[in-house]
Amino acid sequence: MDKPTMQHIVLSQRPEGPARENHFRLETKPMPVPAQDDVLVELAYLSVDPYMRGRMDDVRSYAKPVALGSTMEGGAVGRVIASRSAGFEIGDYVMGPFGWASHGCCPAAHLRKLDTSIAPISTALGVLGMPGFTGWYGFEKLGRPKRGETLVVAAATGPVGSMVGQLANAAGLRAIGIAGGAKKCALAIERFGFEQCLDHTAFATSKDLRAALKSACPDGVDIYFENVAGKVLEAVMPLMNTGGRVPICGLISWYDEGALGGHAAGGAQDNLPKFWRSILVKRLSINGFIISDHWALFDAFLADITPRVAAEEIRFYEDITEGLENAPKALTGLLNGQNFGKQLIKL
Amino acid sequence: MDKPTMQHIVLSQRPEGPARENHFRLETKPMPVPAQDDVLVELAYLSVDPYMRGRMDDVRSYAKPVALGSTMEGGAVGRVIASRSAGFEIGDYVMGPFGWASHGCCPAAHLRKLDTSIAPISTALGVLGMPGFTGWYGFEKLGRPKRGETLVVAAATGPVGSMVGQLANAAGLRAIGIAGGAKKCALAIERFGFEQCLDHTAFATSKDLRAALKSACPDGVDIYFENVAGKVLEAVMPLMNTGGRVPICGLISWYDEGALGGHAAGGAQDNLPKFWRSILVKRLSINGFIISDHWALFDAFLADITPRVAAEEIRFYEDITEGLENAPKALTGLLNGQNFGKQLIKL
Repeated sequence: MDKPTMQHIVLSQRPEGPARENHFRLETKPMPVPAQDDVLVELAYLSVDPYMRGRMDDVRSYAKPVALGSTMEGGAVGRVIASRSAGFEIGDYVMGPFGWASHGCCPAAHLRKLDTSIAPISTALGVLGMPGFTGWYGFEKLGRPKRGETLVVAAATGPVGSMVGQLANAAGLRAIGIAGGAKKCALAIERFGFEQCLDHTAFATSKDLRAALKSACPDGVDIYFENVAGKVLEAVMPLMNTGGRVPICGLISWYDEGALGGHAAGGAQDNLPKFWRSILVKRLSINGFIISDHWALFDAFLADITPRVAAEEIRFYEDITEGLENAPKALTGLLNGQNFGKQLIKL
Repeated sequence: MDKPTMQHIVLSQRPEGPARENHFRLETKPMPVPAQDDVLVELAYLSVDPYMRGRMDDVRSYAKPVALGSTMEGGAVGRVIASRSAGFEIGDYVMGPFGWASHGCCPAAHLRKLDTSIAPISTALGVLGMPGFTGWYGFEKLGRPKRGETLVVAAATGPVGSMVGQLANAAGLRAIGIAGGAKKCALAIERFGFEQCLDHTAFATSKDLRAALKSACPDGVDIYFENVAGKVLEAVMPLMNTGGRVPICGLISWYDEGALGGHAAGGAQDNLPKFWRSILVKRLSINGFIISDHWALFDAFLADITPRVAAEEIRFYEDITEGLENAPKALTGLLNGQNFGKQLIKL
């Protein structure tokens, strides 16, 4: 009898420039056999996230790159089909770091059991998972929000931006979104309660975008939640108010375009002095954060947000692509802003 | 009988490029007559500080520029010679915002009475004044220092840098200074207890300076107290450790060189993306601050530092130039790093 097999997607080459589908390869391998304390899971949804672009490059960053020939990393949810851990039974639904694969086997300690009565299991990868937590942590812990202030966040319909906007709205701030295209802007306003959402594709330059933002933010910007950088960053920074806060969780617009060649190794040129000066003159507080440093607060996040999701006070939107083989295409699409809400792969 | 007169230095023109002595003019005017609650002071020491360069320009900043034809702003200390305030008597020594002048008259509410038994009155402009407070606030409140960490500060023999270095040393950090010239470096080590001090004039490029800093900071840099920017900033940033803190109180190396043409108005170019990325990847906390926002903590500063100055645990060094007419030259010298410790004008 043939041994059982599973499928997974491996990183087959490193990009020079934009990520492309042919940097990945679908492979078949033997189904793993759980060791003591391991759990074997049949995956149902895979996550596709912007940070994955960084894992494709062999540069020093906050996490190791994915090795060539290895399974592409990422969170996933699925159903337990074999367990050698006392804490998990066949039929349990779990979230874990399984990567892009049909099945996954890992130590029980790395898994989170999901309560399927509260919300769809896919939310463990979005609004009730890492992206939602990222928005919550950056807004609540680094944003120092105050009622009546103005917040700007881009990728407003993504799982991070939509969390930030909804939290801001609920806390009595004016939430101004930025998104790519009229449809996303409508979604941001109608579903997520942004007061306004600007379509960045309608502005040729950061200067044009800035002029529109200035109209949308007549009292300036108190919190710029940074997840995209690029043109949006350039547009927002001059509008920051004194004492403004800039939590930075990502720079998606720069990930693919070669603007980030490595570390801050060169000379300070052109814009940097003005930029640095504005941090001083406006007493800005700029804080980079990587959400994996803050798992200790994940339970506090879930305790806050889970009931609000159940009550539909905090809403979410999922972009579901079917088929493991389509994960690379979903990632390249995401990096080009083609997704609509949280990008998932359904198996 | 001639009416009594006083002398003051006015800003006579705005610089285009470096500040020069001929941007100022010494003038004579009638001695002011104190109104109700005013105090008239014969000044003894005037302060010369880097922030004054910014006041000469007519650009939006954290404070209004000095008006052309007005007395150059600044702190000063002196002896009360007439008082219409119940809180002050003739002979009291006070610190106040008198500017570059032989005498000053201002409301008692703006003055701080000095205790001449603790330290020379000149220290109210340095180690026990605004510069010392700046170093203390940035280090204690924004630096989040931890024993065993490494701190870097430039202008190490100036009143801010020397405070920061001494506080770091006392808190069990390794304090690495940067200063211009071998004499200043020796002063930093011998008087202020820096473990090492690098002479930035010995390095042609920020890359060379970085290599030397890397040797001096084998465990990387946890706190970069930013008061100079320019070459030092470029050298230090790539050495920052994960979770590093960068309080920013000044950018003296850029004040005079035209690097700061105004606000962050242009496009993000070249270095900014790498720089911004390093804030994210290293989870840096970058905080601009203007000490005048924090006067509420000044008494806490004095309560902490005054006894340590009296006990000579915290030391200071003054560079005293005689004569009101020499204040402009002292400022241009300061901006070129020619001062040696806290720059004062003695009248």
